[in-house]
Amino acid sequence: MKLAMLNDRIVPLEELDPIYFDRGIYFGDGVYEVLRSYNGKLFALDKHLERFARSLAAVRINSIDMDQIRDRVERAFTTADLAETKIYFHVTRGSAPRNHVWNADLEPNFYLTVSEVPDSSQEKAAGIAVSTHPDWRWKRCDIKSLNLLANVLARQDATEKGFDEAILVDEAGLITEGAGSAFFAILGDTLRTAPLTANILPSITRAFVIEAARNVGLEVVEESLTPQQAISADELFIAVTTKDVVPIVKFDETAVSNGVPGPRTQSLAEAFLEFTV
Amino acid sequence: MKLAMLNDRIVPLEELDPIYFDRGIYFGDGVYEVLRSYNGKLFALDKHLERFARSLAAVRINSIDMDQIRDRVERAFTTADLAETKIYFHVTRGSAPRNHVWNADLEPNFYLTVSEVPDSSQEKAAGIAVSTHPDWRWKRCDIKSLNLLANVLARQDATEKGFDEAILVDEAGLITEGAGSAFFAILGDTLRTAPLTANILPSITRAFVIEAARNVGLEVVEESLTPQQAISADELFIAVTTKDVVPIVKFDETAVSNGVPGPRTQSLAEAFLEFTV
Repeated sequence: MKLAMLNDRIVPLEELDPIYFDRGIYFGDGVYEVLRSYNGKLFALDKHLERFARSLAAVRINSIDMDQIRDRVERAFTTADLAETKIYFHVTRGSAPRNHVWNADLEPNFYLTVSEVPDSSQEKAAGIAVSTHPDWRWKRCDIKSLNLLANVLARQDATEKGFDEAILVDEAGLITEGAGSAFFAILGDTLRTAPLTANILPSITRAFVIEAARNVGLEVVEESLTPQQAISADELFIAVTTKDVVPIVKFDETAVSNGVPGPRTQSLAEAFLEFTV
Repeated sequence: MKLAMLNDRIVPLEELDPIYFDRGIYFGDGVYEVLRSYNGKLFALDKHLERFARSLAAVRINSIDMDQIRDRVERAFTTADLAETKIYFHVTRGSAPRNHVWNADLEPNFYLTVSEVPDSSQEKAAGIAVSTHPDWRWKRCDIKSLNLLANVLARQDATEKGFDEAILVDEAGLITEGAGSAFFAILGDTLRTAPLTANILPSITRAFVIEAARNVGLEVVEESLTPQQAISADELFIAVTTKDVVPIVKFDETAVSNGVPGPRTQSLAEAFLEFTV
């Protein structure tokens, strides 16, 4: 007899809910998005849907109707009726007995949650501390996939050491990005961040930050930094959908911009918020 | 209101089965094992449990009682009452609202399936064809984690091109291992395979193959090969728990050992089976 066990309970394999066969759990075989609303209005939905479509194509989940995804996101947002919401959604390739190879006729699973955006005003006002961690992620971080164990281990390491975010450093000694954020430095009148390669998530917040930087008169240079270069920058910050721009005031054991959020980061954060109204 | 959507259905977040919050699906935050029985006897259970304990420790899932895992595996095996079984099991860190950082008091989820081992006698008799694919996996492949999307994409690519397994090649141009198997070459009286680094799964079948190789008089050299070196080897094969030793007769577009399973691979396969009786 074929069977399954859920903790101590034996279940005939045929009676198991298909969620247990989700390729999302067997392989992380799915892609996701996180977006938010500002003051009752979804922010950059089009751009998130575009990126989601690119992630789906990259992992060859081909049967998704993007209009249906848009409808679901909007319906969930309307039903939740919260002003400051965080919307997470993923699509997995579907549920099937475990086998690396997939069948073309698998029906993808869609999952979405709506919750309130956690308040980040304290972090924004005081700045955060970040610590470096080796970048253990796979080589296709341009795909927003469910394979996130490297990010989890890095963020947990940072948290347990008393830091707020992990900044990932690749084998060449260059900063790629944060465990769950894009990473930026300001050096004089220049905004610096890693270029978009196969190892960098094309962050939507990053794109808005770059636009905001130009609006406040910063030159934008897409070139990676070493931790040593980061420490000697005038200002550092991260950017992430749920918190937009968050200043960094400590990098490993070194105080950044005298331990207080820098003025150019502040004006950038304000310029960013103009996009959201 | 906080809510979830499962495909088109809106569900209050509180009413959702905890399986939907499994960190296994959000992050691939879990580790797994696959073992098998030969003729009604579990093979190498101790070694699989040891490796599982190492994987758990590496991702810091600390609250697992390994005796309990052993009991569950044995109970499932006895209940299934199949002679040639494949047992898959994983532990995830637990179910919680999505957050990279975990709470220390999370209760891990255990999941196991027992099914029949697919018959591989045809592949063993005729040999298989393998194709190369870039190794996109993360940098801790010594951990048997649920982050397997790179393996899935590589295997699917091989399958669609008419091959049976993908052989992964790293950025240095060296073969690491198969998408779901260990990789070996025989050159004269030498068995060659990649050394166990952070990028190689410590395959249990690999360890038995090495022992079997010494028993049939082969010298064992743990040194990586390039695809070019592989093509010019006398014999090639993969090793995997569910099929043990499977000869390779085609590597990308090149026939290996004249397109038939090689004699030393055959004696190695026989020597391997002696461990299983």
